[in-house]
Amino acid sequence: MNNFSFYSPTYFCFGKDTENEAGNLVRRFGGTKVLIHYGGGSVVRSGLLDRVKKSLEDADIPFAELGGVQPNPRSGLVYQGIELVKKEQIDFLLAVGGGSTIDSAKAIAAGAVYDGDFWDFYSGKRIEKALPVGTILTIAAAGSEGSPDSVITNEDGMFKRGASGDAIRPRFSILNPALTQTLPPYQTACGITDIMAHLYERYLTNTKEVEVTDRMIEALLLTMVHEGPRVIADPNNYEARANIMWAGMMAHNNSCGVGRSQDWNSHNIEHELSALYDCAHGAGLAVAMPAVMTYVMDHDVMRFAQAAVRVWGCQMDFACPENTAKAGIQAFRNFLTSIGMPKNFEELGAKEEDIPKLVDVLCNGDGRKGSISGFVTLTEEDCTNIYKLML
Amino acid sequence: MNNFSFYSPTYFCFGKDTENEAGNLVRRFGGTKVLIHYGGGSVVRSGLLDRVKKSLEDADIPFAELGGVQPNPRSGLVYQGIELVKKEQIDFLLAVGGGSTIDSAKAIAAGAVYDGDFWDFYSGKRIEKALPVGTILTIAAAGSEGSPDSVITNEDGMFKRGASGDAIRPRFSILNPALTQTLPPYQTACGITDIMAHLYERYLTNTKEVEVTDRMIEALLLTMVHEGPRVIADPNNYEARANIMWAGMMAHNNSCGVGRSQDWNSHNIEHELSALYDCAHGAGLAVAMPAVMTYVMDHDVMRFAQAAVRVWGCQMDFACPENTAKAGIQAFRNFLTSIGMPKNFEELGAKEEDIPKLVDVLCNGDGRKGSISGFVTLTEEDCTNIYKLML
Repeated sequence: MNNFSFYSPTYFCFGKDTENEAGNLVRRFGGTKVLIHYGGGSVVRSGLLDRVKKSLEDADIPFAELGGVQPNPRSGLVYQGIELVKKEQIDFLLAVGGGSTIDSAKAIAAGAVYDGDFWDFYSGKRIEKALPVGTILTIAAAGSEGSPDSVITNEDGMFKRGASGDAIRPRFSILNPALTQTLPPYQTACGITDIMAHLYERYLTNTKEVEVTDRMIEALLLTMVHEGPRVIADPNNYEARANIMWAGMMAHNNSCGVGRSQDWNSHNIEHELSALYDCAHGAGLAVAMPAVMTYVMDHDVMRFAQAAVRVWGCQMDFACPENTAKAGIQAFRNFLTSIGMPKNFEELGAKEEDIPKLVDVLCNGDGRKGSISGFVTLTEEDCTNIYKLML
Repeated sequence: MNNFSFYSPTYFCFGKDTENEAGNLVRRFGGTKVLIHYGGGSVVRSGLLDRVKKSLEDADIPFAELGGVQPNPRSGLVYQGIELVKKEQIDFLLAVGGGSTIDSAKAIAAGAVYDGDFWDFYSGKRIEKALPVGTILTIAAAGSEGSPDSVITNEDGMFKRGASGDAIRPRFSILNPALTQTLPPYQTACGITDIMAHLYERYLTNTKEVEVTDRMIEALLLTMVHEGPRVIADPNNYEARANIMWAGMMAHNNSCGVGRSQDWNSHNIEHELSALYDCAHGAGLAVAMPAVMTYVMDHDVMRFAQAAVRVWGCQMDFACPENTAKAGIQAFRNFLTSIGMPKNFEELGAKEEDIPKLVDVLCNGDGRKGSISGFVTLTEEDCTNIYKLML
């Protein structure tokens, strides 16, 4: 196990009706004037926005609003938010929505107290200072409610980049599983896929002797395998939603990723897909992950066999572990298909002729020099082969 | 799943040589004058205390010292510590040791900023304010390095009581698995048992639909089953020590206990044993837990069967799940014996004739009225029967 530090100071308020605690929590964590940041109409239509406003009013906390966050959140709205925060002398960001809204709020929070262009943070500069952020989560997926990370799409070129820093970790996150019950099944399935991807990216490690985190990752994957189909079958299943929501947070606050190398190549390979086609991140991952796994399986057959046996209930083929490893990847693929995820380029709306362009941006953008690194270092040729496996 | 809040803001610094970060971390978390609190000679003999002092000196942080913490830490030393902190105008407690030392430091931290008697907190008053505490852990066991709890033995009557409050959560905890390599096998095994007890106390729940926390608890138990015997066989196995140390923290920061009722009757039943006989807490738990489980098994046979199958690898007896449940408890008992833990009153140094006295203090002390509650409510008769199962 490698040396590490772990820090997850977010206060989580979990369960039914917890959005009514928003005002109290903003006050507890020092906010005196709030920007409520949100996405589209569902937060408005469901009455959630009104309940949040009432909670702030009850706590005597004034607020401004900025809606319009899109999936794969854009730099343009971040600039707009930064301006608004400065003009209105806002000192607390309250994100009401999913990972996109939270990531956008984090970017505004960091940009509002920085003299330069906020994009510096998405070009490699560590975030050291930010306004406090709170969240009210409406989809279990990105794990941004408990993470120090934010991903924004730069409209000038439509490329996605990430930024990080403890300063943008939410001070509090309100997790009410009932708020996710109105999600369409496709979005729910995308969330499930994203959570499982966060787990697999940590599972694919080159660090030896990491039984505790292996077991924790497997535990959370097993939870998703059990609860995923239940919530797809019955979107109103509060209990299944609750288990998925806590698993989603635990999957990405890194308590199960400490002390080990991680992969993240599937995420990198997917980012180019959702940037180019504006598809859902989870849907892109559903297509990318099994392809990546199949391509890199030989790098550590026993690791894939372990997941196959422990998570997917495959029988170990002691004579030929490769068979077990393959069976596990196939079981994962079948699971994703069963919850309604796309399985190839066509279903995703991606095009074979774009592969050279995807590979070029992937391997040479963002300061990279012809490859991406993770569980296995992948060259342009490797990435081309992986995209071809998705056809 | 029940509504819950979860808050674990401790900064963990994990790995080899991390004790050298003590000075930097005290400074980062606002300390300007430190009380180093520790137990017996091993911290001195091993050179650890000197390394910690050097780290503080390098960071220009003055300090005082208070050693002498005993296992089952006593109120007398806490009063002494409070006086010293006030006299020396100390503003940061640095505990170097195991759970006893950390709990003693937490008590001093709370008592030093309180006008009344610190024991008020151990008689039910919530701790709202305390000096900041940091820890350097030398045994994986109590989980106090990541918890808001402290247990102290009142010398006036020799009874153990707990106190709790976010204010006494460590600001930072330094976890270097190598520091635990010098522990005698018996103490290591006591720590392993304590960690497994923290997991089982959370596992024995009456809350339905808690798959995510069930799976996480099972993951940490599986880790202990795998790593425990390795570290008993080879005390210098750093990797096994590291896995146990992180599991020990995760077992008790409550991330796997949220949203569910918990038991803690085994701890209550054990506390009377270690208070009366001054035996190691883990040793007492090793004797108490299988007895409690056997006695309450019928309350929820399937819960015990689930642990038997998922943790202990028992075959499910579909015709008679009781057989599986019993096999799981027996496997746990065998495991505890295999790592050198006592299995009955005699090996623990406890006496049958004390049972009435144990039961009386247990069921009628601390404001209780003839029973203790948890997974199952246990009357004086039940507790008598349970202690008899330990003979």
